[in-house]
Amino acid sequence: MDDELLAAGREVQAKLWPRVAAGPTGTFPAAQLAPDFYRYVAASAFGMIWSRPGLALRDRSLVTVAQLAALGRTDELRAHLAGALNLGITREELVEVLMQTAVYAGVPAANEALTVAATVFGVGDQ
Amino acid sequence: MDDELLAAGREVQAKLWPRVAAGPTGTFPAAQLAPDFYRYVAASAFGMIWSRPGLALRDRSLVTVAQLAALGRTDELRAHLAGALNLGITREELVEVLMQTAVYAGVPAANEALTVAATVFGVGDQ
Amino acid sequence: MDDELLAAGREVQAKLWPRVAAGPTGTFPAAQLAPDFYRYVAASAFGMIWSRPGLALRDRSLVTVAQLAALGRTDELRAHLAGALNLGITREELVEVLMQTAVYAGVPAANEALTVAATVFGVGDQ
Amino acid sequence: MDDELLAAGREVQAKLWPRVAAGPTGTFPAAQLAPDFYRYVAASAFGMIWSRPGLALRDRSLVTVAQLAALGRTDELRAHLAGALNLGITREELVEVLMQTAVYAGVPAANEALTVAATVFGVGDQ
Amino acid sequence: MDDELLAAGREVQAKLWPRVAAGPTGTFPAAQLAPDFYRYVAASAFGMIWSRPGLALRDRSLVTVAQLAALGRTDELRAHLAGALNLGITREELVEVLMQTAVYAGVPAANEALTVAATVFGVGDQ
Amino acid sequence: MDDELLAAGREVQAKLWPRVAAGPTGTFPAAQLAPDFYRYVAASAFGMIWSRPGLALRDRSLVTVAQLAALGRTDELRAHLAGALNLGITREELVEVLMQTAVYAGVPAANEALTVAATVFGVGDQ
Repeated sequence: MDDELLAAGREVQAKLWPRVAAGPTGTFPAAQLAPDFYRYVAASAFGMIWSRPGLALRDRSLVTVAQLAALGRTDELRAHLAGALNLGITREELVEVLMQTAVYAGVPAANEALTVAATVFGVGDQ
Repeated sequence: MDDELLAAGREVQAKLWPRVAAGPTGTFPAAQLAPDFYRYVAASAFGMIWSRPGLALRDRSLVTVAQLAALGRTDELRAHLAGALNLGITREELVEVLMQTAVYAGVPAANEALTVAATVFGVGDQ
Repeated sequence: MDDELLAAGREVQAKLWPRVAAGPTGTFPAAQLAPDFYRYVAASAFGMIWSRPGLALRDRSLVTVAQLAALGRTDELRAHLAGALNLGITREELVEVLMQTAVYAGVPAANEALTVAATVFGVGDQ
Repeated sequence: MDDELLAAGREVQAKLWPRVAAGPTGTFPAAQLAPDFYRYVAASAFGMIWSRPGLALRDRSLVTVAQLAALGRTDELRAHLAGALNLGITREELVEVLMQTAVYAGVPAANEALTVAATVFGVGDQ
Repeated sequence: MDDELLAAGREVQAKLWPRVAAGPTGTFPAAQLAPDFYRYVAASAFGMIWSRPGLALRDRSLVTVAQLAALGRTDELRAHLAGALNLGITREELVEVLMQTAVYAGVPAANEALTVAATVFGVGDQ
Repeated sequence: MDDELLAAGREVQAKLWPRVAAGPTGTFPAAQLAPDFYRYVAASAFGMIWSRPGLALRDRSLVTVAQLAALGRTDELRAHLAGALNLGITREELVEVLMQTAVYAGVPAANEALTVAATVFGVGDQ
């Protein structure tokens, strides 16, 4: 794994998730099982793709949220909704993206994504 | 949002879920976050599509259960299995629909759907 | 492969596709490559599932069309739309099933399925 | 179908596809088979969702392209890539969205989407 | 359901899951609801497909794990990861299969599958 | 993009597709539109994942074919079936993988994959 790519990737990840980036990495079970995988994701997904010029970081975040909602990937959606807020995308914008998901991926996909968003945004908590 | 469409949609929803329709609406977290979304679903999905003549309500329910099972949308499947029972579709018919799902969407989709159905039907409870 | 299951399956297939069932079988390339697969489908999908009591053949056809539309399986959808017509399900009913697919699987799935149906029904031909 | 919703939807569609909007509507086979469906899409998807404030039209276009690429809906992707260009989104931005699709939906999804984009952009033509 | 097919299927299942095969069958809720379904799976999936010569049992296990990871079927993935270990496939090989899933089905699919694998392998437990 | 990763990736690609690797690269429309994407795939998918020890190249090929069949990615499936043959995997083994796909992803997925395989293997040609 290339060190420069890893550093470039970690830099993008730190913008999306400043608190996670500041803490220790790789302590969850899947990262203990396959530490190389999470280095691969940092170096390739973030270091080779997200770090490219040609599309604003805000836009990369918005389209990622949209794709994760459409594909029903709720764990990753949770993380990227938090990341989007950290980049300054508003709750209202995110809700609109998730509502529109109903058109292209069906009502259940939008419903599920809004349920995840309610958790991330702390809506409905006591 | 058009009031007539909303009313037409709510009428269909009341046939599928009489008890829910009689109670207060929009109290779950996602509905608190995006109340417009659930009005949109009532007005468009139920008011514009389910309320159309040309296909029996029973058939609309059956094909919805089938699609949700095939797509692995378990939350919505749970709701629509309950709705199907309310419309008079039998457990046996629903089990047959879910078994047949294995042919077109694979055994894991059918297995997951039958697990949801066991919960809805109260099978395996103490 | 069990002969009784195969016979039971072929009987169901003959109701859906009388003309195909009357002709020679297995002449398309995939059937030449894997003749066992198509015997397996006849014996298991049709002989073990479709032939079961507990759900009307018409309902089995309707939910299959719905699932294939939701999953975007256009080749199989074409065959099962033709089969549904052979069982006496009307064009109008099938169009309603496909329109409703937009709610659960998204507008593009419904759009694609209606395009297939237009071909099967000979709509838009010169 | 509500006339105001339909008008609101057609207004959005005219921004995405000015030339289509200026011509006759509903002449393709699926629209001949199910004209109501395309009115439903205009009134609900475009009139009820895309026309909402809270998210820029440019952002709605970008996330739609992203979702269609992730879901492998090539026909709709073709139309929305053209729509995105009409809204002033650049080719470079769209290529970045499609490349990033590899991360969340896999390399084959991105590959297929870039193949569609090459056609829409007239790249590789003689 | 054919007894010979069922026996052939049970024989394969006993190689994948010796402990389950030795115990009572069909005690989970979905099996109580639809006992015929699980006999169908044993007779068709295992008795008609897995029991065929032409592909090593180890290879059948490996490609099944790969498909379940790609499709996001976590319950079945859990069972087949355990089955793969019982056949002698190593943890390292399984981790490599799941990492590679990121290329063809996206990073979230691989991430989810590795999380399941960490549970099956007892990684990250106290 | 790292040169060493790219070289490692190209080496794997040359084993799967010796003839393609020997010819000029990037001449198809999508590669003209997004040449960086195909370098990214070579460096990340092949240079960072496929080139890893821990899983035999033959096994990587087999599970890739299985995943592409399950996901319905026919273009990539075509290429990887050819690659599998180049690695010495037999037609019979590949047909078994594709037949088994019916169990986990449904009969239509297997049917579609076998149709692709018939083309790659030249079965049914005049």
